[in-house]
Amino acid sequence: MNFASDNVSPFCPEVLEALTLEASSNAPAYGSDEISQQLDRTFSDLFDKEVAVIPVATGTAANCISLSALVTPYGGVVCHHEAHINEDESTGVAFFTGGAKLLPMDGPTAKLEATALDAFISGQVNRGVHSVAPECVAITQATELGTVYSPAEVTAIGDICKKHDLRLFMDGARFANAVAHLDCHPADITWKAGVDAISFGATKNGAMAVDAIVLFDTSLKGRIEQARKRSGHLHSKHRYLATQLLAYVKNDVWLKNAAHANQAASALADLLIGRGATLAHPKDGNELFVKLPAELAAKLRDAGLMFHAWPSLGADVYRFVAAWNTDIAQISELHTTLR
Amino acid sequence: MNFASDNVSPFCPEVLEALTLEASSNAPAYGSDEISQQLDRTFSDLFDKEVAVIPVATGTAANCISLSALVTPYGGVVCHHEAHINEDESTGVAFFTGGAKLLPMDGPTAKLEATALDAFISGQVNRGVHSVAPECVAITQATELGTVYSPAEVTAIGDICKKHDLRLFMDGARFANAVAHLDCHPADITWKAGVDAISFGATKNGAMAVDAIVLFDTSLKGRIEQARKRSGHLHSKHRYLATQLLAYVKNDVWLKNAAHANQAASALADLLIGRGATLAHPKDGNELFVKLPAELAAKLRDAGLMFHAWPSLGADVYRFVAAWNTDIAQISELHTTLR
Amino acid sequence: MNFASDNVSPFCPEVLEALTLEASSNAPAYGSDEISQQLDRTFSDLFDKEVAVIPVATGTAANCISLSALVTPYGGVVCHHEAHINEDESTGVAFFTGGAKLLPMDGPTAKLEATALDAFISGQVNRGVHSVAPECVAITQATELGTVYSPAEVTAIGDICKKHDLRLFMDGARFANAVAHLDCHPADITWKAGVDAISFGATKNGAMAVDAIVLFDTSLKGRIEQARKRSGHLHSKHRYLATQLLAYVKNDVWLKNAAHANQAASALADLLIGRGATLAHPKDGNELFVKLPAELAAKLRDAGLMFHAWPSLGADVYRFVAAWNTDIAQISELHTTLR
Amino acid sequence: MNFASDNVSPFCPEVLEALTLEASSNAPAYGSDEISQQLDRTFSDLFDKEVAVIPVATGTAANCISLSALVTPYGGVVCHHEAHINEDESTGVAFFTGGAKLLPMDGPTAKLEATALDAFISGQVNRGVHSVAPECVAITQATELGTVYSPAEVTAIGDICKKHDLRLFMDGARFANAVAHLDCHPADITWKAGVDAISFGATKNGAMAVDAIVLFDTSLKGRIEQARKRSGHLHSKHRYLATQLLAYVKNDVWLKNAAHANQAASALADLLIGRGATLAHPKDGNELFVKLPAELAAKLRDAGLMFHAWPSLGADVYRFVAAWNTDIAQISELHTTLR
Repeated sequence: MNFASDNVSPFCPEVLEALTLEASSNAPAYGSDEISQQLDRTFSDLFDKEVAVIPVATGTAANCISLSALVTPYGGVVCHHEAHINEDESTGVAFFTGGAKLLPMDGPTAKLEATALDAFISGQVNRGVHSVAPECVAITQATELGTVYSPAEVTAIGDICKKHDLRLFMDGARFANAVAHLDCHPADITWKAGVDAISFGATKNGAMAVDAIVLFDTSLKGRIEQARKRSGHLHSKHRYLATQLLAYVKNDVWLKNAAHANQAASALADLLIGRGATLAHPKDGNELFVKLPAELAAKLRDAGLMFHAWPSLGADVYRFVAAWNTDIAQISELHTTLR
Repeated sequence: MNFASDNVSPFCPEVLEALTLEASSNAPAYGSDEISQQLDRTFSDLFDKEVAVIPVATGTAANCISLSALVTPYGGVVCHHEAHINEDESTGVAFFTGGAKLLPMDGPTAKLEATALDAFISGQVNRGVHSVAPECVAITQATELGTVYSPAEVTAIGDICKKHDLRLFMDGARFANAVAHLDCHPADITWKAGVDAISFGATKNGAMAVDAIVLFDTSLKGRIEQARKRSGHLHSKHRYLATQLLAYVKNDVWLKNAAHANQAASALADLLIGRGATLAHPKDGNELFVKLPAELAAKLRDAGLMFHAWPSLGADVYRFVAAWNTDIAQISELHTTLR
Repeated sequence: MNFASDNVSPFCPEVLEALTLEASSNAPAYGSDEISQQLDRTFSDLFDKEVAVIPVATGTAANCISLSALVTPYGGVVCHHEAHINEDESTGVAFFTGGAKLLPMDGPTAKLEATALDAFISGQVNRGVHSVAPECVAITQATELGTVYSPAEVTAIGDICKKHDLRLFMDGARFANAVAHLDCHPADITWKAGVDAISFGATKNGAMAVDAIVLFDTSLKGRIEQARKRSGHLHSKHRYLATQLLAYVKNDVWLKNAAHANQAASALADLLIGRGATLAHPKDGNELFVKLPAELAAKLRDAGLMFHAWPSLGADVYRFVAAWNTDIAQISELHTTLR
Repeated sequence: MNFASDNVSPFCPEVLEALTLEASSNAPAYGSDEISQQLDRTFSDLFDKEVAVIPVATGTAANCISLSALVTPYGGVVCHHEAHINEDESTGVAFFTGGAKLLPMDGPTAKLEATALDAFISGQVNRGVHSVAPECVAITQATELGTVYSPAEVTAIGDICKKHDLRLFMDGARFANAVAHLDCHPADITWKAGVDAISFGATKNGAMAVDAIVLFDTSLKGRIEQARKRSGHLHSKHRYLATQLLAYVKNDVWLKNAAHANQAASALADLLIGRGATLAHPKDGNELFVKLPAELAAKLRDAGLMFHAWPSLGADVYRFVAAWNTDIAQISELHTTLR
C-alpha cells in the first residue's frame, strides 16, 4: 500500500468517463468551448457567489499565478514556514510575482494563528521603500501537516487581513479534505471568511492534472488570464481541464473522494495507535503524522507499506497520506498481517 | 467541419486507451514512475541519439522553458516575424528567460533562409553591453504558414548558427506533420542538422495536453528541470504526460496521425482549387492557405465549414487546418454539397 | 576636438560650485534632506504644473524605471526602431517591466508620425492574451538622430495615445536641446501635449550623473519609488543628485548649455557644408548627421576631430555631437586648419 | 551632531579635489577613459591579486548585481537575518537574480558563525527541484550591528563554503571600517579567506556616490557588466565613479577616514559609558549600540545629538554611527554639555 502521498493515486473513474465522452468530437480551443464555459456557473453555484474560474494543470501554477495578481513585485506574502509555496515550489513565487518575498512565520501544526499573525504583521518594521511590506497572507487548507482551519479560524485571519489591508489567499491543494472534515459549506471557509482567491485542488483527489484558480474577487480575472497565458499554462485543448473539473465536482465526487481519503487515514490511525503509535498532532484530513516505535515502522515496511519519515517533527515521526482510492479493507487486513 | 485549427480536435484513441490502462494503479509522483522513466530511452531510439526528454503540458511552456536554458537574460533570439514565440505567446520568452529579446526577421512563407539569416546576424551592430547580441536562432518546423524546411535547409541554418556560435532551437509544435511530409528520419532535421533542442509537439496531433522538450544537448537537462519546476510545469502525476507521449509515438501513431492530416489538407486543397481557389503558397503540412473567390468562401461557410481569414497574407486569403481526425470522406462529399 | 558624443563632456562649473558648497555639512539621507525636498517645487514651477520628481543617476534607469510604472508585464511599448530603449539599453525594458515587449516601428529621422502611429497601433492584431497589446508609446525628444518634435507633433501623438487609451512617455535625454531649439515652454511639448512622464536628462548637458524622472501623473510616484529602490537607484547621499539637478535648472543653466551646444553644432554644420558636406537630414539640436566626401573626413581626422561613422544612414554619413562645452572659437579656427 | 548614520556625511575633500580636477576636460564615455582604466590595476595592487573592478553608484546595486552572477534564478543565498540584502534592499536580490531566495539564519551580533553555518547548510533539506538549494553565502564586513569578522572567522566561513561548494560574497559597505579595526591586509579577509566578490563600499566613508564590485574571480566580469548595463548602472560619464574611487583609495584616504570614524565612535562610547550607558555588544567599527538610561537619552537629544532607537536589540538600546567627518573635539565638549 502506498501512503507516500496522495499524488501516487491515479485519476478516478468519473474523470475517466468524462474524458472518454469528450474524446471523439471537435470543440473550440483555448477555453471558448461549451464545457469550459460552464466553469464559472458551476463554481459560482458551488461557492454560492459569482466567481471566476481559471483552471491550470498544477498546484504550483495555481498558487503562483494567483499570487502574481495579489501582490506587487515589491511586496511580501506572509505564510507559514511549512507552506508549500515556501518549501516546495522552488523560487516560483518570486518568479511569477516579479520578485515578491515570502515572509514565513511559525504556528502550531502548520497553521497561522490570528493573534500571532496580527503581531507578526505589526512587527514587520516599516522602513518605506527599504523594507518589504506584507501585502498578502497565504494559508493552506488543509495544511501541509494535515490539519484543518475551522471557519472561525479562517474568519479570524480574514479579519486580521482586513485590519491591515492585506489580501488573503488560500492554497487549497487539499481543500476537499478540509471541507469533508469540517462538513461545512465551502463558502464558510473562503469568501465569507475574507478569502480573495483560492487554489482549488483536484489533482491529488481524483483528477489527472487540474487545479483551479477560483477568484472571489473577479476583478483579478484579467491579470490572471494574462499571467496564465504567458507562463504557458493556457491549454489549447482547454476543454479537458474543464472536463476533469466538472466531473470532479459533479455529484459531489470531490467530497466523496475526500471523505473516503479522510476515513482511510482514520482507519490507519486507529490501526497504528492500537499497535503503539502516537499521533504527532491531531489528524484532521487525509494526512497522518505519527510517532512509530522502531519495530512497528520496520514491520510496516516489511508489510509493503510505503511512507515517508518526517524528521522535522521528530526522529521517529512518519507521514502517511491516504487518497481517494486507498483500500480501507486492505487496511483492516493489516491487523492480521502485523500480528 | 472544423478547419479553424488542429487544436479543435480531440485526443486520439491510442492515447485514450493508454490513459485508461493507467487509471487504476498507484505510481510514484513527479516522474520517478516506470512509465516516465521510459521516455529518454524511447526518444533516444526515435532520434537515434541519446536525448533527455522533459514533457510539459503546452507548446508555449516547451518553447519558453527551452529558450530559458539556451540564452542569457541579456541575449537575443533570432526568429521569423511569424514565429509563434513572437506572435502568439504573449511576453512568455522575456518572462522565462529573464529578459531576453526576440530579434524577428523576414523570410518567405514564414521560413528563415540561411543566407538572409547570416546577413541578419552579421548586421546586428555589436555595441557590447549596450546592444543585444544574438545567442540563439529559433525556427518552426512545420512553420506557422504550414511550410516545411527540408533537411538541407535546416542544415544550412545550423551551419550559420555554428559559424556565429549560436544555439539552434526548433519549435516543433507540428514536427510530426513536417516529418510525415518529408518522409525523412527525425534526426535529419534535428540534431544532425545542428539543432540543440526541440519542442516535440503532440497536443495538436492526437494528444490531450503534452509537448515534450527533447534535448539533443543533454547538458541542458538540469537547468530545464529547475525552470520547469519553478514555473509550475512539473506535474505531480507526471506519468500521465509520459503515458500520452509514449502512446503517441508507439507504433508510429504520431506519423500516422500527421500523414492523415496532411492528406486531408491535400484533399481539401484539391477540392478548393477545382472550384477556383489558388494556393497562397505551397501546402507542405496540414495547413492550407488559399485565396478564395468571395462566392466560394460564402458557400463554404454555408456548408458549415469553419476556418479563419488570414488578412496578413491578403484580404482574400484563408487558412484551413486539417487534423488527425479530419474526415476525408466528408471532404469528398463537399464536391456534391458545393455544386 | 571630441564630437564623439556629448557624454565626453565634463560637468559644468555651476554644478561643480553647487557640489562644492554642499561638500562640508551633514544632511539626512535618502532624499529627506532640504535640498532634495526642493525638487518637486522647482520642477513644478519649471513645468507650470504639480509634478513629482525622482532623480536617478542614468538615463537608462530613468527610462526603464518610468516604463515599469506605465505598462504591465504583459504589455507593449511602441517606439521607433532607433529609440535608445530599443537599441542601446540592452534588455533593460524587459528587465524593469517584468517582460514588457518593445514594438518598434519606423518613421523619418527617428521620429514617430502621428498618422503612421495610429495605423501601426490599429494594425497590431488583438488576439487577446496570446498577443501583446500596446500600452504605452515612447518617443525621444530630441531624437537619436538629432531631430526635434514640434509641440504640434507631440500633441498629435498625444491625441493618438488618448484615442487608443495608451500612456505616453518621453525619453528626454536631450530634452534641453529640444526646448532650446523650439524656444517653447517645456509644458508645450510635455503634459500639455499628453505626456505622462519624462526622463529629464541632465548628464549629457552639464551634470555629472543625474537624470530625473518627472511625473506629470503624480499617481505613479509610489510605484516609481519602489522600483527605484529595489533596482539600486536610490542614492543614500541623495542630496547630491538633487544638488546637481537644482544647479542645472537654476538661472536656466540647462537652456544656456543646450543653446550653446546647438549653436556649436550649427557652426560645425556651416563649416562642413562649406567644404562639401551635405546634411543627411536637418539638424535641430546638438547632433549633426552629414555626408562627408572621403577626403574631408580624412582631413577632419587629421585635424584631431573625433566623431563616429553612422553606417545605418549611409556609408559616407558621420555623426558629430556638440556639447555644452564645445569651443565655438575652435570650430572657427578649423576654417584655417582645413585649408 | 548627527549620529543617525554615516550616510549623513558629505563627501571628503580628497574626493572633491579629484572631481574638481576632472571637471574641465573631455574624456571617452562608459569606462573607456584613462581614469577608469586605472581601476583594475589600482585595486589589484590594493588586494595583492589580479581583480576586476566594476563601480556602481550604490551599495544595493553592488550587492545585487554581484549576486546575480553568483547564483542561478533557482538558488538560495544564505545570509544573516540582519543582513542589508535581507532587511534593507526591498526585493532587490530577487529582482536582479531573477528569483533567487534569501535563506536567512541567526548568529550573535549579526555575524554568521562557521559551525552554525555548516549546520544550517546541512540542514537545508534537499528535495531536488522542489526546494531551493544554497548556492552562495553572503556576509557583511563590518556587520549591520557594527561588529567585525576576524580573518580567522572569515576563513572558517570560506572553508564551509568550499566544503559545500558554495560561493562566498561579502557586503563591504563598511569594509574600510573593518580593515581599520583589524589592522590587517585587505587580502586577509577577502580572497585569501575564500571570498569570490565584494561590494567595496566608499559612499558611507567619504565618497559622494560610488561602491565598487571587486571580483576576485575575474571570470564573473562579463556577466557583471551585462547585468550592470541593463539595470541602468553603467554611467556614461563613468570617469567620475572612477575618480571618486581612486581618490578614495589613494594615500590610504579610505583607511584614514575609517580609522577616524572608528576612533570617534570609541570616543563617544567612552563618554556614554562614563555617564551610565552600557554597550549592547562590543563596538568594533564606527557603529555603536548602547543601552542608555532614559535620562541620558533625553539629555543627548537636548544637546542636539541625532541618533536612532534600535528596538530589535532592546527597548533602551540606541545606535550611534560616527563618520569620517565626525568632530572628535566636539565629542569631548559633550563632557561639559552633559554635566
